[in-house]
Amino acid sequence: MIEAKIIGATGYGGVGITELLLQHPEAEVTCLVAKADVGRTISEVYPHLEGFCDQPILAVDDPRAVEPADVVFFATPDGVAMRGADAELDQGAKVIDYSGDFRFGSQDAYHTYATRLGLNTDHAAIDLLDQAVYGLPELHRLQIGQSRLVGNVGCFAVGVILGLAPAVASRFIDLTSIICDCKSGVSGAGKKPKGAFHFPERQDHMNAYRLGGHQHLCEIERELGVLAGDQLALTFTAQVVPANRGILSCLYGQLIESIPYEEVVEAYREFHQNNHFVRVYDRESAIGTLHVRGTNYCNIVVDVDERTDRLRVITHIDNLMKGQAGNALQNMNILFGLPETMGLNHPGQYP
Amino acid sequence: MIEAKIIGATGYGGVGITELLLQHPEAEVTCLVAKADVGRTISEVYPHLEGFCDQPILAVDDPRAVEPADVVFFATPDGVAMRGADAELDQGAKVIDYSGDFRFGSQDAYHTYATRLGLNTDHAAIDLLDQAVYGLPELHRLQIGQSRLVGNVGCFAVGVILGLAPAVASRFIDLTSIICDCKSGVSGAGKKPKGAFHFPERQDHMNAYRLGGHQHLCEIERELGVLAGDQLALTFTAQVVPANRGILSCLYGQLIESIPYEEVVEAYREFHQNNHFVRVYDRESAIGTLHVRGTNYCNIVVDVDERTDRLRVITHIDNLMKGQAGNALQNMNILFGLPETMGLNHPGQYP
Amino acid sequence: MIEAKIIGATGYGGVGITELLLQHPEAEVTCLVAKADVGRTISEVYPHLEGFCDQPILAVDDPRAVEPADVVFFATPDGVAMRGADAELDQGAKVIDYSGDFRFGSQDAYHTYATRLGLNTDHAAIDLLDQAVYGLPELHRLQIGQSRLVGNVGCFAVGVILGLAPAVASRFIDLTSIICDCKSGVSGAGKKPKGAFHFPERQDHMNAYRLGGHQHLCEIERELGVLAGDQLALTFTAQVVPANRGILSCLYGQLIESIPYEEVVEAYREFHQNNHFVRVYDRESAIGTLHVRGTNYCNIVVDVDERTDRLRVITHIDNLMKGQAGNALQNMNILFGLPETMGLNHPGQYP
Amino acid sequence: MIEAKIIGATGYGGVGITELLLQHPEAEVTCLVAKADVGRTISEVYPHLEGFCDQPILAVDDPRAVEPADVVFFATPDGVAMRGADAELDQGAKVIDYSGDFRFGSQDAYHTYATRLGLNTDHAAIDLLDQAVYGLPELHRLQIGQSRLVGNVGCFAVGVILGLAPAVASRFIDLTSIICDCKSGVSGAGKKPKGAFHFPERQDHMNAYRLGGHQHLCEIERELGVLAGDQLALTFTAQVVPANRGILSCLYGQLIESIPYEEVVEAYREFHQNNHFVRVYDRESAIGTLHVRGTNYCNIVVDVDERTDRLRVITHIDNLMKGQAGNALQNMNILFGLPETMGLNHPGQYP
Repeated sequence: MIEAKIIGATGYGGVGITELLLQHPEAEVTCLVAKADVGRTISEVYPHLEGFCDQPILAVDDPRAVEPADVVFFATPDGVAMRGADAELDQGAKVIDYSGDFRFGSQDAYHTYATRLGLNTDHAAIDLLDQAVYGLPELHRLQIGQSRLVGNVGCFAVGVILGLAPAVASRFIDLTSIICDCKSGVSGAGKKPKGAFHFPERQDHMNAYRLGGHQHLCEIERELGVLAGDQLALTFTAQVVPANRGILSCLYGQLIESIPYEEVVEAYREFHQNNHFVRVYDRESAIGTLHVRGTNYCNIVVDVDERTDRLRVITHIDNLMKGQAGNALQNMNILFGLPETMGLNHPGQYP
Repeated sequence: MIEAKIIGATGYGGVGITELLLQHPEAEVTCLVAKADVGRTISEVYPHLEGFCDQPILAVDDPRAVEPADVVFFATPDGVAMRGADAELDQGAKVIDYSGDFRFGSQDAYHTYATRLGLNTDHAAIDLLDQAVYGLPELHRLQIGQSRLVGNVGCFAVGVILGLAPAVASRFIDLTSIICDCKSGVSGAGKKPKGAFHFPERQDHMNAYRLGGHQHLCEIERELGVLAGDQLALTFTAQVVPANRGILSCLYGQLIESIPYEEVVEAYREFHQNNHFVRVYDRESAIGTLHVRGTNYCNIVVDVDERTDRLRVITHIDNLMKGQAGNALQNMNILFGLPETMGLNHPGQYP
Repeated sequence: MIEAKIIGATGYGGVGITELLLQHPEAEVTCLVAKADVGRTISEVYPHLEGFCDQPILAVDDPRAVEPADVVFFATPDGVAMRGADAELDQGAKVIDYSGDFRFGSQDAYHTYATRLGLNTDHAAIDLLDQAVYGLPELHRLQIGQSRLVGNVGCFAVGVILGLAPAVASRFIDLTSIICDCKSGVSGAGKKPKGAFHFPERQDHMNAYRLGGHQHLCEIERELGVLAGDQLALTFTAQVVPANRGILSCLYGQLIESIPYEEVVEAYREFHQNNHFVRVYDRESAIGTLHVRGTNYCNIVVDVDERTDRLRVITHIDNLMKGQAGNALQNMNILFGLPETMGLNHPGQYP
Repeated sequence: MIEAKIIGATGYGGVGITELLLQHPEAEVTCLVAKADVGRTISEVYPHLEGFCDQPILAVDDPRAVEPADVVFFATPDGVAMRGADAELDQGAKVIDYSGDFRFGSQDAYHTYATRLGLNTDHAAIDLLDQAVYGLPELHRLQIGQSRLVGNVGCFAVGVILGLAPAVASRFIDLTSIICDCKSGVSGAGKKPKGAFHFPERQDHMNAYRLGGHQHLCEIERELGVLAGDQLALTFTAQVVPANRGILSCLYGQLIESIPYEEVVEAYREFHQNNHFVRVYDRESAIGTLHVRGTNYCNIVVDVDERTDRLRVITHIDNLMKGQAGNALQNMNILFGLPETMGLNHPGQYP
């Protein structure tokens, strides 16, 4: 059995991977580490886990917290994994980090990201950067399979990159014309209560935020740029809507030349044909975020607005699954040579 | 593999049992029957099932719909199973019905129930009534195990009966004093759109309904009466609140004599000690319906209001799981000699 | 014009009375005081007020904050008004406090309340207690009219007292048998973000809380006791459901003798005939909390469960209106000899 | 007093204008006409109106339904007003229609609209078309003031047109580059229950719909084309999110040349300086749909994405107010020479 340590076990990302590992036939949770709720069990903090996982939450400096594991999930904010990954790797673990710490292969690229977020721009583990792989399996599964350090994707980035990759790779669209209009459920903001996510003030509230530049923009532009073989800059609008789980991304780009709609759909189907967790739909389909809730799928509706020769792609994910813990487990499967779908092969519950 | 036929496959009860059977190691869905959406596949109606279950929805009179199965779930309204169960039993199937058709062991008892609902009061399969078992495993697992025909419980009834059974069986409380104040999420009303469940009119809307006598009252009073060894009548208030899944039941009864709180809790723990899906909590616990969402658990908080010598028990279920499909699967497991928890042994997703 | 000062202007109670005063033909907001957001305008904190009220938020010790006003609303937590009311009264103001500080006419009664909440049990303004009137206009409008200091009601208390008053006053029901099962929307918990009210953890979450004794119990038992001419103790269960505004209260009591349903309804109609903001409905009515949202009404559905000879009354209020700011404005109208309905005479918006 | 007749009184648009007229100092509701619920009073259908408006709902062919009124609101689907407006105008009434019947000044323009919706493309009152004015006061108040027949705006159209008008009129942006990504609360779909708006299936559900071409596109392109002095075609994506009221529109256009952000904001401020119900915010503002709920305001956040030289404008309205009944009342005020804000001058309730 793959022994898994989860650092940041009490946030949504931590509890999400715990839930998944409990159902995974080849892995088990052996160590839970967090800053909050130390000394309680995880099932005291999350009563739904009672009888499934009743392990204690360990402080970072608890001797049991530093024992070796086969895989370590850093379900932590920016800046934590870059300080802790080294020791885990040295002990033989494979490491999956949720934050931006290992999404960027160079200090320069990290600098832009960190600046955007107002973080300290000096990366604390520069020497690890070239070992790290960007953890989007659909684009990087081979590199992930040969790696030991994965920077799990940003939640908005998943839906945007999977939705634009076929068009950008085939250069259907003008790279200067891309607009990404993305709406997230509230759980994407994490567990910490804030005024903007207080139930009475969110119930009927939709808003855009961080217009000045959302941090996920960096990885989106980098990944799409690589696919296009060219640098690009796009407009990205992050929004929060009164849902719990789900990201709906509307992606727009000007077609370079008129292409029949059917060819566009076909190109999408072909691009994603080996991506189990991507489903491509035509524009007549009635697809919404509820259809992927609780699952690791990314559902993509492909459209062309013939009146304006514009590609319109609409993607749907669960921000806590394909946008976070589910994708992390998919990465773990690849790191250990297991089928990507192991422990993720269920349809969710409806409604 | 146990081959399962689902009649009424396109309602919430049908899709719920389908989702569960897809994850069950010993069973498989072999036949889906419904009145609506005939000719489409189930995954066209419920896109989250794509790739998991793409079977066609068959009309009742389709020859494939009448082929034998090992187990038949009637996820149908009142009046359907009583007309179809006989043929399925004759073909060797075991039958689990969601409606009230087989919850009552006699024509008389059925008559009361049917009257309350304004149904035709003549049961169409009187000869089957004495074979039918009331499908609450926690009280009837032995009989269910020896039976072939199960009347699955009503959603409100589960939370009420499990919450009051220990007190009634031990005669802690005055049988004339029982009040059940129960709040359900909207999915309990089923898939059919109605004004009262239209999103804009439900978002901030709570209401009590059917004050004149909710139909689940019959089975509640019958079951508790059997435990008490006496007839009883109680007050039951059904309410709908703006949640999707979940029933919160507050149950009250006058203590016959003062009993220390700890003894009451202990009696509850003892009563339910062999009931895997029942968790008993003391009154300091912060338990709510989200902690059982998506699972087959019934979480019970036990309290005594010492100021008034009153027992107060608060139960929490997912109305579509322990209140419907999950409980039905638990019944199936018992019918086939499998562990009760098979296919149900997961903690759900949070949040 | 009545000049109004609002202390605690940035909480839901403060913004609620501000919204109402802006529409009141005889009053105007002249001073806003708060601990948070000092130096900003109220419309910077609450953008919906832009152009309606752009006044600065003053610190408590700002000289402008202590200038005289005709009426002062303490929209503050327990313990504030008891320290500030004296000075305001001395300057000639009439005072309405939202907290429990002035709901109890004696140090003894306050002691019980404060104990329940874990507050300092010594009241800081004992000498004011006998001037204070309990601010439920439907029961105390004459005393309020002759007073200058009003302790505005607790949100749960309004729905319970108005719903039980007719039965208790007429002694229909056994005073030892009363159970109050009350469900509140989340805004009743105030503006401060907490985990339990974080959108993702509240969306499908219902729970009971403070089983050990909610603080509103004190005023409920006191008021009903006065009406009954006898002490009483009842069971009260506070619950939170995933709505924004609204309290649904189910109230139960054993009828002392069988009374025809029609007589009970008639008694309710008679009791409340002069209470403009109380509407009495019979048990066939389809009434819910959305029908009072945004208004000062308390809608009461009267029922008798003939099977158990039990009175069942269901009341509906908006916890921020009849349960807080609306009721406070009603009190202000009475204090100043204005029609009770002034500034409150609108039906709300649906849906 | 202006006597108002409302046709289609029982839909959300009908009840919305009724609520507003009840608070209007110069108008009164004198006649309610509908197809549903004939014979009941409006307060039986909408209990929140009890005591405010208890008038009977009349059938279309009831003699009282055809008596003259000063203003007639057709709160009806497409195709109704075009058959009924003539008679009302003949009797001296001014007419405001909510549907698309009178939004288009020619049979040709109507043809496109009707085709998009799959309606009969022959307009039944062609001779009235040139009298009709498009009912967006911010662009057409003078013509509305001189007219007797107003085609009230589409809900999506309001937010889009007000948000793009300054940029298009000044030709800041490339007319071929415009993308409108619009998210609506569910009430925009009206009162009729449908599966897609059933509470359990909407709670966590976001989706785009009618990709092939939403009907509001016609009026948007027409109005913006007039402002630009040129024809234009844009991409419009309609989405539904799990809110009740509110439309959040993100509007994008390529700047023709780099313009400093401050100039853009200033141009917006200047364009809307005389539009009471439009508030312009800079991009640092934390504005969302809750801040306009229940009001007639359109809040506009102006941004420039300097990285891509793209204008980004985000508008916020309440779809039932500025998007429907509130805007209709504003039109009525103009038709009768009253201040535009009469009966609309309130900030809403928060939260």
